[in-house]
Amino acid sequence: MKRTHHCAQLSKADLGATVSLAGWVDSVRDHGGIIFVDLRDREGITQVKFDSALREQAARLKDESVIGITGKVESRPEAMVNKNLPTGEIEVDATEVVVHNLSETPPFPLTDAGGDKVNEDMRLTYRYLDLRRPKMRKNLAVRHRATKSVRDYFDGQGFYEVETPALFKSTPEGAREYLVPSRIHAGQFYALSQSPQQFKQILMVAGVEKYFQIARCFRDEDLRADRQMEFTQIDVEVSFIDREGIYALFEGMLKKVWKDVLDHDLPTPFPRLAFKDAMNRYGVDKPDTRFAMELVDLSDTFKNSGFKVFQSTIANGGAVKAFNGKGLADVTQGEIGALEDIAKSLGAKGLAFIKVEKGEWKSPIVKFFSDAEKAELTQRLNLEDGDIAFFAAAPWERACAILGRIRLEAAQLLVKRGKLTLRADQWNFLWVVDFPLMSYDEERGGYAATHHPFTSPVPEDAALLDSDPKAVRGQHYDVVLNGMELGGGSIRIHQPDVQEKIFKDVLKIPADVVESRFGYMLRAFKFGAPPHGGIAFGLDRMVALLCGTTSIRDVIAFPKTQRAQDLMTQSPTSVTEKQLKDLHIQTVMPE
Amino acid sequence: MKRTHHCAQLSKADLGATVSLAGWVDSVRDHGGIIFVDLRDREGITQVKFDSALREQAARLKDESVIGITGKVESRPEAMVNKNLPTGEIEVDATEVVVHNLSETPPFPLTDAGGDKVNEDMRLTYRYLDLRRPKMRKNLAVRHRATKSVRDYFDGQGFYEVETPALFKSTPEGAREYLVPSRIHAGQFYALSQSPQQFKQILMVAGVEKYFQIARCFRDEDLRADRQMEFTQIDVEVSFIDREGIYALFEGMLKKVWKDVLDHDLPTPFPRLAFKDAMNRYGVDKPDTRFAMELVDLSDTFKNSGFKVFQSTIANGGAVKAFNGKGLADVTQGEIGALEDIAKSLGAKGLAFIKVEKGEWKSPIVKFFSDAEKAELTQRLNLEDGDIAFFAAAPWERACAILGRIRLEAAQLLVKRGKLTLRADQWNFLWVVDFPLMSYDEERGGYAATHHPFTSPVPEDAALLDSDPKAVRGQHYDVVLNGMELGGGSIRIHQPDVQEKIFKDVLKIPADVVESRFGYMLRAFKFGAPPHGGIAFGLDRMVALLCGTTSIRDVIAFPKTQRAQDLMTQSPTSVTEKQLKDLHIQTVMPE
Repeated sequence: MKRTHHCAQLSKADLGATVSLAGWVDSVRDHGGIIFVDLRDREGITQVKFDSALREQAARLKDESVIGITGKVESRPEAMVNKNLPTGEIEVDATEVVVHNLSETPPFPLTDAGGDKVNEDMRLTYRYLDLRRPKMRKNLAVRHRATKSVRDYFDGQGFYEVETPALFKSTPEGAREYLVPSRIHAGQFYALSQSPQQFKQILMVAGVEKYFQIARCFRDEDLRADRQMEFTQIDVEVSFIDREGIYALFEGMLKKVWKDVLDHDLPTPFPRLAFKDAMNRYGVDKPDTRFAMELVDLSDTFKNSGFKVFQSTIANGGAVKAFNGKGLADVTQGEIGALEDIAKSLGAKGLAFIKVEKGEWKSPIVKFFSDAEKAELTQRLNLEDGDIAFFAAAPWERACAILGRIRLEAAQLLVKRGKLTLRADQWNFLWVVDFPLMSYDEERGGYAATHHPFTSPVPEDAALLDSDPKAVRGQHYDVVLNGMELGGGSIRIHQPDVQEKIFKDVLKIPADVVESRFGYMLRAFKFGAPPHGGIAFGLDRMVALLCGTTSIRDVIAFPKTQRAQDLMTQSPTSVTEKQLKDLHIQTVMPE
Repeated sequence: MKRTHHCAQLSKADLGATVSLAGWVDSVRDHGGIIFVDLRDREGITQVKFDSALREQAARLKDESVIGITGKVESRPEAMVNKNLPTGEIEVDATEVVVHNLSETPPFPLTDAGGDKVNEDMRLTYRYLDLRRPKMRKNLAVRHRATKSVRDYFDGQGFYEVETPALFKSTPEGAREYLVPSRIHAGQFYALSQSPQQFKQILMVAGVEKYFQIARCFRDEDLRADRQMEFTQIDVEVSFIDREGIYALFEGMLKKVWKDVLDHDLPTPFPRLAFKDAMNRYGVDKPDTRFAMELVDLSDTFKNSGFKVFQSTIANGGAVKAFNGKGLADVTQGEIGALEDIAKSLGAKGLAFIKVEKGEWKSPIVKFFSDAEKAELTQRLNLEDGDIAFFAAAPWERACAILGRIRLEAAQLLVKRGKLTLRADQWNFLWVVDFPLMSYDEERGGYAATHHPFTSPVPEDAALLDSDPKAVRGQHYDVVLNGMELGGGSIRIHQPDVQEKIFKDVLKIPADVVESRFGYMLRAFKFGAPPHGGIAFGLDRMVALLCGTTSIRDVIAFPKTQRAQDLMTQSPTSVTEKQLKDLHIQTVMPE
């Protein structure tokens, strides 16, 4: 019995036709001795009527059984028409049925609501059932569509998709990696590639000019809701391009994906924000700009203040910052306590605030302020009745970080009160740029690359590399959406002498380590390396956003749990002694 | 300086325009004090003239240096026009030059011929240079185009591309796999997926109906010219489909790829050949049908022969087979010796033959034949002057295998003599079908699945599963091209009871092993598994054929050597004690 149509296809135009359908029993109903089966396939549902000799067979079908039927397309009786279903005006009167597979009763209802109620471990154990739920089926479809759209875009722009190895070389200094023991080379290991970074730069040296890859990457980090052991990134590298070129290229891609998948016109170009401005205004390098409540620097206001806490912080080179939690004066004592705990976890001594209620300022600190300071506060924070101002006094970066976090928490409290709406389909993309190239690691007493050591300095800062590495900005850029960093990249160094200087003089990596880790790259750069730059962008996260879900596990067909297990296949497992022996390793159990 | 054109773009239509190009110095020539640089990028070459103040700078440029230039498009003098180059009628008179990167002298010439002459280790060590050679650049482009074509095809057919995990569960009974130690679960391991077989079947149970994936797979086998540690396969699975459906689907894909990449119209449908017929006619299950020289079964002819070797083989249930090495009577003594060695390595006692030269039969065995036997031989083998017939007398399968191999060797000898042409662009695709489902492993004393244990029996043979498993044909199919197996697949078992019977009653896998390895699949099949089938097809091999190369290493950007090493990055390597400790393993060096 060969399928002639799928289950969302038949309409009144097909009346009288003999058709064959196949799919899953979505439900069975007995209406006065006639059996109605809602037959479901990937595309939709068609009602099938059994009122002949097949009635008995149909009555025994349990939900989720797989059948094929042949029958004639008929009009539904007026009362049974379902205007919400594409096939809602017809039904198929079955003349033949084949039962391919009888189903046991699923452990949870395969509806969107039914699956959302059970715990995720159950869904992952029975992933083949979980994926039958309408929203999970849609997520797979969206992932396919989005991925195809990305590929069509880069193909149209003249890019080659080039596959790079998953089995790479161990680079122990970076993020924790998965090792793969070699059978042929006893005692040696491959590492699973954390990203194609080095290979894609090598492809530029190879003259590929425009490379992309939808690349599987592996990172042995502790897993969180938005992390998986293996994840997929949109990986891009281009020769003879500058930052502006990358912005335009990637905005074009996102525009196409949003159009293809959501039929939404993403406005471009995206706003750009320097790292310093992002920190100053939002207290974070990945600001959520769907709401204001921007941070204000009050160091000028308080530099001669009678409030010694503020005054001395500023005198010691720190900053006093604040923002207006607009309309949140009704914050509860408990909520304030929770906010204070968060501030303390970020290094604050406490969380100073001023509530304005019925014209009155309620605050433990306001008594220290002069009238002029109060007037300036009111004006600069636009303080009105019902508002609450939060303060931080600390070294600049920490003051920013504390209030950046409190700002996000305050937004959540406003959302809870119905005073703020954060729409998941408001797409506030932006580029964050002009990051510092290096950060000084106090503990280690040396410089570390803010992103990675291949990032090229901003040309006008290059001269500072010797005198003041911290002041050098890198040609790095992050794509940020609604408070999430979705990807980032940079224009790279393509001159072997500059790259060597970064490794040896700035990062102080010993010469033998440079040689063993990066020697081949430095050599490659001596044979005609073009200027180049690129970007890496999280596909899983992008698809999750397109699907309106917060967990990337909902857009990965077979994810691992946060304990790094596959609950369906029961992995990882112990292996045989012979396998270990072949690989020249043995296990050492922790005490 | 921003690139305005690529290096294959400018023509007389652009005369007088000011343009900017960027790329590699392909060559530098000094013509009476004027410097000419052939500037090369991914697309082509443009001649750049330096006769101004830039002359000196240009003269210092070594080949493969990277520069950008700005200049005016001019006509070349009549004598310098190059009709073979798209840009051969123009040159650019440079007014500005930027030297991005000076190149050292490459260790080998970056021409097709230059690279072909050096050993492959050198090419792999300097892969970034090797990939600049025109044919390697073209291979990358073809791979991109072919992969895109495959994706477009399946997308157009309503398939979802679904990513499945690389980190899978160890299944030690199969091909040797790569293990990945778990940090979180001490003493436990993941295995790198050898193919998405189980996941794709689970996706069918999940209702995806039409799945495909261009999937990275990993196999720790000993490497040969056409094997890599990691390789890429076109992986497909469909629900509610039969063998005919798969054939049509996949022929459609190949037709599209050949059209898109080579502009070649592949005739479809492909011929089909039952396994038995393939063995009988070509002595192999992946016949090269670009030439005839088919095997003939002479058991009837010789069953009462006076030649005891033949007669007794047949009496013992074996077969006597032969083929006519058409026109190869001039085979040398040395060549015959080599053929005999091959036959012996396959279990033959020797290699009987009859040469026909000047009407005379020259053969050590012909004296045993009756006139009637000779007449029948002449007629059935179409023996003519200049021919040579090769014989094998052995159990049927071995007789087939011996002559199948000799047939291929004979073809090569004919090619060497210019008597046969085997064109690499003659695309003799065919399906080999009706394989036996099981083979009896004499050594182990039990049945083994010919392909894998998920293959469904041919319906009309299913009843023989209990009584005579060896006689059951599987619903398996291989795609064969010119003597190479490019892929294969099957209609799978979707009934849990049949699958369990295969595991336990036929393959005699212990119940606990079935549970730990396949328990989740058997469980999945109890919740509404649709009938389904699929295919897996080697992408690397396909692209190699499209590129006209015999080595898949030529179509993989960064392949490993046959010693499983990456010569460019120097992988694998030893790792630190800390890394091993984190993963709860230590190395054990072989004695």
